[in-house]
Amino acid sequence: MFQFWVSLYRKYAADSERGFEGMENPGYRSGSFDSLHQSSDDDDDEMVDIAGATLDFSNTDDDPPLSSGGYEEHSSSSRAAGMNGNGPSKFVDPLEDPLPGVGTYEDFNTIDWVREKTKDRDRHREITNKSKLSTVALLHSISDAFSGWLLMLLVGLMSGALAGGIDIAAHWLTDMKEGVCLIGFWFNHEHCCWTSNETTFKERDQCPQWQSWAELITGTSEGPFAYIMNYLMYIFWALLFAFLAVTLVRAFAPYACGSGIPEIKTILSGFIIRGYLGKWTLIIKTITLVLAVSSGLSLGKEGPLVHVACCCANILCHLFTKYRKNEAKRREVLSAAAAVGVSVAFGAPIGGVLFSLEEVSYYFPLKTLWRSFFAALVAAFTLRSINPFGNSRLVLFYVEFHAPWHMLELAPFILLGIFGGLWGALFIRANIAWCRRRKTTRLGHYPVMEVLVVTALTAVVAYPNSYTRMSGAELISELFNDCSLLDSSQLCGYKPPANTSETGVGNSLADRPAGEGLYTALWQLALALVFKIMVTVITFGMKVPSGLFIPSMAVGAIAGRLLGVGMEQLAYYHHDWFLFKGWCSPGADCITPGLYAMVGAAACLGGVTRMTVSLVVIMFELTGGLEYIVPLMAATMTSKWVADAFGREGIYEAHIRLNGYPFLEPKEEFEHSSLTVDVMRPRRSDPALAVLTQEGMTVEEVEALVESTRYSGFPVVVSQESQRLVGFVFRRDLLISIDNARKRQEGVVGASQVVFTEHAPAHAADAPPPLRLRGILDLSPFTVTDHTPMDITVDIFRKLGLRQCLVTHNGRLLGIITKKDILKHMAQIANRDPDSILFN
Amino acid sequence: MFQFWVSLYRKYAADSERGFEGMENPGYRSGSFDSLHQSSDDDDDEMVDIAGATLDFSNTDDDPPLSSGGYEEHSSSSRAAGMNGNGPSKFVDPLEDPLPGVGTYEDFNTIDWVREKTKDRDRHREITNKSKLSTVALLHSISDAFSGWLLMLLVGLMSGALAGGIDIAAHWLTDMKEGVCLIGFWFNHEHCCWTSNETTFKERDQCPQWQSWAELITGTSEGPFAYIMNYLMYIFWALLFAFLAVTLVRAFAPYACGSGIPEIKTILSGFIIRGYLGKWTLIIKTITLVLAVSSGLSLGKEGPLVHVACCCANILCHLFTKYRKNEAKRREVLSAAAAVGVSVAFGAPIGGVLFSLEEVSYYFPLKTLWRSFFAALVAAFTLRSINPFGNSRLVLFYVEFHAPWHMLELAPFILLGIFGGLWGALFIRANIAWCRRRKTTRLGHYPVMEVLVVTALTAVVAYPNSYTRMSGAELISELFNDCSLLDSSQLCGYKPPANTSETGVGNSLADRPAGEGLYTALWQLALALVFKIMVTVITFGMKVPSGLFIPSMAVGAIAGRLLGVGMEQLAYYHHDWFLFKGWCSPGADCITPGLYAMVGAAACLGGVTRMTVSLVVIMFELTGGLEYIVPLMAATMTSKWVADAFGREGIYEAHIRLNGYPFLEPKEEFEHSSLTVDVMRPRRSDPALAVLTQEGMTVEEVEALVESTRYSGFPVVVSQESQRLVGFVFRRDLLISIDNARKRQEGVVGASQVVFTEHAPAHAADAPPPLRLRGILDLSPFTVTDHTPMDITVDIFRKLGLRQCLVTHNGRLLGIITKKDILKHMAQIANRDPDSILFN
Repeated sequence: MFQFWVSLYRKYAADSERGFEGMENPGYRSGSFDSLHQSSDDDDDEMVDIAGATLDFSNTDDDPPLSSGGYEEHSSSSRAAGMNGNGPSKFVDPLEDPLPGVGTYEDFNTIDWVREKTKDRDRHREITNKSKLSTVALLHSISDAFSGWLLMLLVGLMSGALAGGIDIAAHWLTDMKEGVCLIGFWFNHEHCCWTSNETTFKERDQCPQWQSWAELITGTSEGPFAYIMNYLMYIFWALLFAFLAVTLVRAFAPYACGSGIPEIKTILSGFIIRGYLGKWTLIIKTITLVLAVSSGLSLGKEGPLVHVACCCANILCHLFTKYRKNEAKRREVLSAAAAVGVSVAFGAPIGGVLFSLEEVSYYFPLKTLWRSFFAALVAAFTLRSINPFGNSRLVLFYVEFHAPWHMLELAPFILLGIFGGLWGALFIRANIAWCRRRKTTRLGHYPVMEVLVVTALTAVVAYPNSYTRMSGAELISELFNDCSLLDSSQLCGYKPPANTSETGVGNSLADRPAGEGLYTALWQLALALVFKIMVTVITFGMKVPSGLFIPSMAVGAIAGRLLGVGMEQLAYYHHDWFLFKGWCSPGADCITPGLYAMVGAAACLGGVTRMTVSLVVIMFELTGGLEYIVPLMAATMTSKWVADAFGREGIYEAHIRLNGYPFLEPKEEFEHSSLTVDVMRPRRSDPALAVLTQEGMTVEEVEALVESTRYSGFPVVVSQESQRLVGFVFRRDLLISIDNARKRQEGVVGASQVVFTEHAPAHAADAPPPLRLRGILDLSPFTVTDHTPMDITVDIFRKLGLRQCLVTHNGRLLGIITKKDILKHMAQIANRDPDSILFN
Repeated sequence: MFQFWVSLYRKYAADSERGFEGMENPGYRSGSFDSLHQSSDDDDDEMVDIAGATLDFSNTDDDPPLSSGGYEEHSSSSRAAGMNGNGPSKFVDPLEDPLPGVGTYEDFNTIDWVREKTKDRDRHREITNKSKLSTVALLHSISDAFSGWLLMLLVGLMSGALAGGIDIAAHWLTDMKEGVCLIGFWFNHEHCCWTSNETTFKERDQCPQWQSWAELITGTSEGPFAYIMNYLMYIFWALLFAFLAVTLVRAFAPYACGSGIPEIKTILSGFIIRGYLGKWTLIIKTITLVLAVSSGLSLGKEGPLVHVACCCANILCHLFTKYRKNEAKRREVLSAAAAVGVSVAFGAPIGGVLFSLEEVSYYFPLKTLWRSFFAALVAAFTLRSINPFGNSRLVLFYVEFHAPWHMLELAPFILLGIFGGLWGALFIRANIAWCRRRKTTRLGHYPVMEVLVVTALTAVVAYPNSYTRMSGAELISELFNDCSLLDSSQLCGYKPPANTSETGVGNSLADRPAGEGLYTALWQLALALVFKIMVTVITFGMKVPSGLFIPSMAVGAIAGRLLGVGMEQLAYYHHDWFLFKGWCSPGADCITPGLYAMVGAAACLGGVTRMTVSLVVIMFELTGGLEYIVPLMAATMTSKWVADAFGREGIYEAHIRLNGYPFLEPKEEFEHSSLTVDVMRPRRSDPALAVLTQEGMTVEEVEALVESTRYSGFPVVVSQESQRLVGFVFRRDLLISIDNARKRQEGVVGASQVVFTEHAPAHAADAPPPLRLRGILDLSPFTVTDHTPMDITVDIFRKLGLRQCLVTHNGRLLGIITKKDILKHMAQIANRDPDSILFN
């Protein structure tokens, strides 16, 4: 086994180009063969290099490879008693770790939520009991109680600050593609012109301090040559940024690519991916996110911000023992961090909390709700005090509408919902097909080339069209915007009102006939729509940080704006139609195209992610008016229903499945009517379950059994004949304890009896002393009967966060069922390949 | 047993005065001896008369009294196979009810969530399978899928309409206490004066069409005699309204009293209280709520609105088989209805959903989140279209602040939080002590007298002080309000600005020195505060519908406003203090007393209810500005911490405990380190567990065992010697099945064998045929081992919604643990009387 890993590592080192695929076939950490040396403290060590380029997972059947040799000698010689939190707590002293490694997990494995939670409760009980004894202990107890809040504060501050930095840097680099500020290259276009004296609105964009590349190089900003010059510089910078991004990701943190939300969902459900939330990932993701966004690719920073916030949370967890040592507690913090990520991405703290609750979290107790909310607020206020957009708003596309909407407009809104649902379903299919192609063909072997080609394509096509040239957030902001009379943008190119005197402000928003400028804008938008739809499919999933929110919203916003302007012109020219009669008189502001853009954005985002409440609340927080909840809701609901008709999975679930992570979807009901006996193992034709007996087996026999099987754990029974269940012992704990005992404990040899009972049986004077292992025995394993319908079993797994459960029949142990068995069974029912589930 | 109930019923009928106490000692429904006659359809029949005035609950140990005779003859003669949803679903046809009564519950019992959910999944599977066969079945399947949404729409519409009606009626009746409209007695004061020509702001209140009682009777509105006349009329109407309210409650729907939230929490956690959400309760609660609010008592309509919405939901559930027949599905709808209630009470749909999630719900899947949100929005828009306040707002105390706040103001806000926490803790203690006194002394025997005395007291003391005379909502609205220059209310009695020219609008809100009027107002407010604090304690818990939100908020708002004005004057006179320097120059608007009132209201409400996120979001929706979330959050957090230091329970939990409901708090962690073996029964000294064997027992033996014990269910084992568990059978199902078989099935006599195995054993030719009962056997009972720490067991009970769980040791059945055992154990740990837990 050890050999296997070493050879794999060598293979990786020789062929580092291909190591990059680790993300798709997430490989075991190259250092995992010595993971037993480490205490659980450094679970999250950065993973700089990954192996597993061509790992064959078919041999990792029900258990992770675990090296059975090479343990470091431990200073502790305690007899492995009481490391198991599930056992009776009188034996347990959770504040000490008698045997490092007992109770920890392998990489790419599922945690046991119940064990972790019990461990934390024991720890808490310990502290509470001690706090009555001395003042120091009391202070410790108080600081322990408040450490959660302190941690939340720190997560909020750090994530808010990082988000602000990312916003500012991305803004600057995006402008860099067009030109440079002469008074200091570190100013972006807007800052550069703040000092300018020409303060008229029109001229502000063209202050002399800011020079486009053509001006700087050729001295003129007019003419075809200057245009070509700017065009080329745009492409050059885009390629440079993209190249830097993909190279940094490849070299330092392969986990930094993508949006990160599918993996975070999986991690929150109890999976372990070491290094996914480590400090290297954080650093590289932050830098490359800026580069990727600035390169003009069709991607957003919103999803990756969730990943960044989770990295912050995970790193800050190391400051507090309570969170560092407990996988379940840490996941509570990560749930809150997901809320923080969305809070800073959209300036929507409540929406962020609901997003975490609805979309990413698995275990979300009420305490976490409250803390998430706190952290999300702290982050939002930190970001606001940084003020990255200079308008005291948290996002570029904040709007305040006041125009009312009419009941009849629900029809176009629902139409947008249908469009959003269709786009969502189409996008998911196309993107998954493309990603699968990337995984299985040679395409995946050239990630850098792929990124460069897509960037070049994007840049070449995007530059001529002003709506694709600007960044996604700017585009959305412009599309959401309502045209006032003075607005000079092309989208507001209406004909001036003919015979109305400009009396009030109310009239400035009245519906007007479209002018030349608007028609041009509409054409450009239509082209941009087609382009965005196509390029987003191939962009999402490349080896750069890439979020989906902004591109999806952009697609929806364009479609919505087009429909909105269409409706507006219809209403203007046909205001005496029976449809418009009564609510749309001439000179009134009956249709708000910006609102249509917003509804369209919500619909498309809903179609892709299948968010519902959180999406509506995020949009509500963006507009600040309760009035628009109904249109948003109608569109989101329609979009979800339409998209669900084509496939129940959102994009994140689809990517989780593509990567073979063991994720038990909490939202879906288990519909099939199978029984546990049909799913458990051993199957009818298989050999009997490998079990240990509570006494009578020798160390050698136990070792032989463990060696000959690959299971992660073994049930312990009273005797082979009765098959009455006593408990469950984990392979990892068993190996560590036996190895430790052989080294440290006097007289324990191969012929020693292994005893799981409370009182050791009398043994002959000449026999070697028995090895007592009750300490590592889980005396409260979960059991279900063989007749339990699978829907109940699935419910138990979901709600209690189990990894495995034993199956009994009439009180006798019959088999075992693991999360992986369930997922395989579900895959089989859905006519998918059950072997696509790779991990435990 | 039958005799017992009949005699109890007679006793009740003879002494109807005392039947009233049923609410405190919730008695079994007088008709419960024939509850077996009914199918589960009429679970929610109104409960007009209740028994149990002096019920001794000490004999209802682990099981509800179940009459063992008098079954109606059933038309179905099927052999009791397949009524049990937990069993293998091949035997199950959930769309038919072969034996009415099997699978239903007694009143005042806990449902089995797992069984209910499985039943629903079976039903759903059935419909899905059938839908592939014919178009009609497909349509049925689609209508089934959308029935949830339709139901939500109906709940929203009905609750919104009812809330609007209650608002309008309460407004009218409240004004009735002061005078009458001459052009139509059905106009309230405001409506009456709308038609008036005197449109100046000042005079509008005193239009000639509206006459105070003194004017009407004595012809003059001046002088002490008129004052006394008005005073007396005020007291007369208050007493009349209160008398009507309490009499209606007593006569028609005893369950209509109180706020209803504690009971709804308990019902949502899986308890059954028949009639609590029935149509009589709805009708009477709606009417008496209007009367109680109008009577001027210190109570609000917000809590009861939640009850009203839940009644609507429960009644509307009868329209859909899916919800009528399934206790778990119905509770999903009730969770949404709780959100609807808060949505219409505060005009806060998001806050309502979070309230339901945080405060009242037990099982809240994501699907419910989405539907709750939909229903809450529908209700809010229905209410808005009714427009009860004539200002297109949903609540009287909606405000739009724009004034900023300074970081230093957090100190007074936290002070308000401390006040709120202290008030909350004090209120809960005092109120519970008072309610306990009412329960145990003669006080409780005269509910009508109590209400009249408290009403008279309130009216006499409240009338002279204008701040107690106005209704709670009006008071809060006035306290939240920010004073503009033109404001004529006493609270805005500032001295006019001395030497500033009235140039801009911005200055109109500047801090000004307090004038005579304001000082008077402050005195009156201080007196009102003391009065409200005292009278609320004795009001909450009386036999009228009474909510706590408004009185709590009023207390907090008064305290906040007092502190706010104090701070304002401090800042005005000492603006050069180092504390105020830099942010509070003269002529600036640095302190907003209205904001203090709002923060105080949130703090007090938080102290009483221990709401956190939902409270902040409700307040946020009331103000519409993200800016004030931080002050609100600081105050709420402080308030919760301070109040928790005095006792962990909120007012609702305290009332649940007072009433002895079996409620397993989902928020509290189980801290003690006991094992399941310490809590389960039988205890060490008790006789062994009563079990059935899967074969070998005769009908007579089974009946004898059932008769001699009072347990709700019995484990079935392979044999008495092995104690290997096969399944679990409910007493109710067992009795019904045996009885049915004796009547309907040929040859089943007392000596027949009862067989739970799949294949009946061969029996001698002359022996009577065996009675096969595998159909009612739950083949997947939940089990834990005796060594399982109680915290895990409690977690399992909570998360899966169990009623009971079997305990095994090394594969052998050892005992049983029920929800009641857990609650009793918890009570014991907390040094409370374990016998205070009355129900299963």
